[in-house]
Amino acid sequence: MVIDMDYTIQKEKAEQACMILCEQDIDAWLVWVRETSQMADPVLELVFGGELTWQSALIFTEDEKIAIVGNFDADGVKAKEIFDTVIPYTASIRDELVKQLERKDPEKIAINYSVNDVAADGLSVGMHRILLDYLKNTPYSSRLMSAEYHIRKLRGRKTDEEVSRIRRAVEITEEIFDKAKKFVKVGMAEIEIYDFFHKCMNEYGVSSAWAEEHNPAVDAGPYKQFGHAGPIDNKTKEGHLLHFDFGVKYRGYCSDIQRMFFFGDKKDIPDEVQHAFETVRDGIQTAADWIRPGAVGYEVDNIARDFVKAAGYEEYQHALGHQLGRLAHDGGTLLGPKWERYGDSPMGVVEVGNVFTLEFYVTTEHYGQVSLEEDILITRQGCEFLSHPQKELICIKK
Amino acid sequence: MVIDMDYTIQKEKAEQACMILCEQDIDAWLVWVRETSQMADPVLELVFGGELTWQSALIFTEDEKIAIVGNFDADGVKAKEIFDTVIPYTASIRDELVKQLERKDPEKIAINYSVNDVAADGLSVGMHRILLDYLKNTPYSSRLMSAEYHIRKLRGRKTDEEVSRIRRAVEITEEIFDKAKKFVKVGMAEIEIYDFFHKCMNEYGVSSAWAEEHNPAVDAGPYKQFGHAGPIDNKTKEGHLLHFDFGVKYRGYCSDIQRMFFFGDKKDIPDEVQHAFETVRDGIQTAADWIRPGAVGYEVDNIARDFVKAAGYEEYQHALGHQLGRLAHDGGTLLGPKWERYGDSPMGVVEVGNVFTLEFYVTTEHYGQVSLEEDILITRQGCEFLSHPQKELICIKK
Repeated sequence: MVIDMDYTIQKEKAEQACMILCEQDIDAWLVWVRETSQMADPVLELVFGGELTWQSALIFTEDEKIAIVGNFDADGVKAKEIFDTVIPYTASIRDELVKQLERKDPEKIAINYSVNDVAADGLSVGMHRILLDYLKNTPYSSRLMSAEYHIRKLRGRKTDEEVSRIRRAVEITEEIFDKAKKFVKVGMAEIEIYDFFHKCMNEYGVSSAWAEEHNPAVDAGPYKQFGHAGPIDNKTKEGHLLHFDFGVKYRGYCSDIQRMFFFGDKKDIPDEVQHAFETVRDGIQTAADWIRPGAVGYEVDNIARDFVKAAGYEEYQHALGHQLGRLAHDGGTLLGPKWERYGDSPMGVVEVGNVFTLEFYVTTEHYGQVSLEEDILITRQGCEFLSHPQKELICIKK
Repeated sequence: MVIDMDYTIQKEKAEQACMILCEQDIDAWLVWVRETSQMADPVLELVFGGELTWQSALIFTEDEKIAIVGNFDADGVKAKEIFDTVIPYTASIRDELVKQLERKDPEKIAINYSVNDVAADGLSVGMHRILLDYLKNTPYSSRLMSAEYHIRKLRGRKTDEEVSRIRRAVEITEEIFDKAKKFVKVGMAEIEIYDFFHKCMNEYGVSSAWAEEHNPAVDAGPYKQFGHAGPIDNKTKEGHLLHFDFGVKYRGYCSDIQRMFFFGDKKDIPDEVQHAFETVRDGIQTAADWIRPGAVGYEVDNIARDFVKAAGYEEYQHALGHQLGRLAHDGGTLLGPKWERYGDSPMGVVEVGNVFTLEFYVTTEHYGQVSLEEDILITRQGCEFLSHPQKELICIKK
């Protein structure tokens, strides 16, 4: 087991957190947690990278980063060198918390709750009640606000080190797909192919970008609906398609790529399959050509959605793209339709340094679904593909 | 990678959840979650054992278990065979949620928030707001209450299968300690010993019961304060003590055991070390002799705390024991003092089927801290040791 004791990224992100505060007109960001081995606020690995046991307050202001933590945790927190001030306590955190807030006297204090964004919704109802109780005779209880927009910017704007880890995750994913091209044969069960991917992941020392029972998704033939179903004893067959949805986590950062194989020669690909494949491939390219900083999430989704409808298919029942980072679904701006279940995330704006997936499926009449997924980095000019987009169906010959 | 596709425990616990509802005079228990790969309510692995993507409602009543989940998740949820009714949705969960609540019409609906217990505090502030919004024109928004006591009973009362997995985790932990007795030599660095434990964990195919950088804690010599500090380049030395805090997770269930080694012959053990060791050993035994179903958490802590003070030592700065289960710190009743940071968990009552640790340290003048930890199962008569209590310092000879 390799433990990542390198806190470069957490230091970078903690600095970035302080800078974004100014931009957002927030005076302090309070990360308020306990027993994080049981349930961890998703921002914790971003700006801290470890566990906290007793009630703990991480306070970020324009000019200072303060950690108030249980006495058993204090040495470990100091050793990370992320915080300017580390304050240990034994019996109760209340007095130190109030004292530090009085010292900084922030007008606006952002805390981690959000209706729209799970990645910004790490505060539990119980911990919120405790906070309100601790602050009840102070002016600070009425100065609390949601840190949603702050966290979106922080998670979304990848630093150079973050991008380089995602690049490596994508590279490993593509190398494993290359190995799979040689491994996969007609007649194999999905679960056998799944096991091969896990053997490769072990060799590369990477973990699963999402729940491992669904990663990779391996869908053979026309009857499996793509989505979150795991691999089963279903077998590949000549003339059928094989679909993968696969992502790895390399040093804390994820890839997320879908690929399509076909069992047979290129000349045997049925027209309806080829048409579906080209529609997906070209729809993704069209969205990639269009996306740029300043674009609004749902606008990008619309580009691909209109493309699909114009090609005569039913529209896909999910978003065109999500952000990629520490999580395969990294929160923040979503390239998705304005459906109720997506909250206001499709109203977010695309920024330089964001990493998105572009993905969708169409359904053929006789061969099931055809789906692809690529990973892109938003640049000042538009976007750069981090993955090598699949241009043709990968033919597995007998 | 081995994936546990066995949902026996989740089925057992889901049944138990329905039974405990009656006892608690609650009509429905609502587990209300989304994107659980990013932040998972701690009860989810107990009664579900997987991930849910879109907003999802798991409703437990006396006579029915209902899951309302996103359409991509529905097949996976059905396959687990935990729920009597699985309802998929696409655009919004709101209508189905209200419809199912109307159908069951519960007077009291327990949801997962708790000031006292992190294991019962899995509901985020954002998800709570969404729930209140969905229920705003129904009678159900005013029928919500905390599921704290319900979850405490559910987590705390181990089923036979849960106990058998904890037994195996304890057994593996003790086997690794036996190997360590032969491996450890004078002059080794803490980190070298740490690596040996991880090699053994790999061989057994078990994972870490808590953050792996602190597991095992390996503390050589008199200067390290026990707690949550990881192993460093500090070396073992003749005449010094070596302390371990180590736990493994076997098929989802944890052990947590502390052991003390001494470098030298039995006859070389200094009197103050021997006295400290006997105080800890006998303090734990005294608490074990006393504990029984119906005892209140803080009473048990008091037994050991008084014992330590009577022996002339300062009292330990933590609780005597915590529950053990899916988590090394499993929530619920705590065998701890009535300190503010423990909330009301020391007021909980000990029940048959609970699994606790018994642990504390005393501080010697010249040899640092001496600390032990054992694991016990509460029986109708009192308790049974799951670990084999350490009776003497383990002497490592040259």
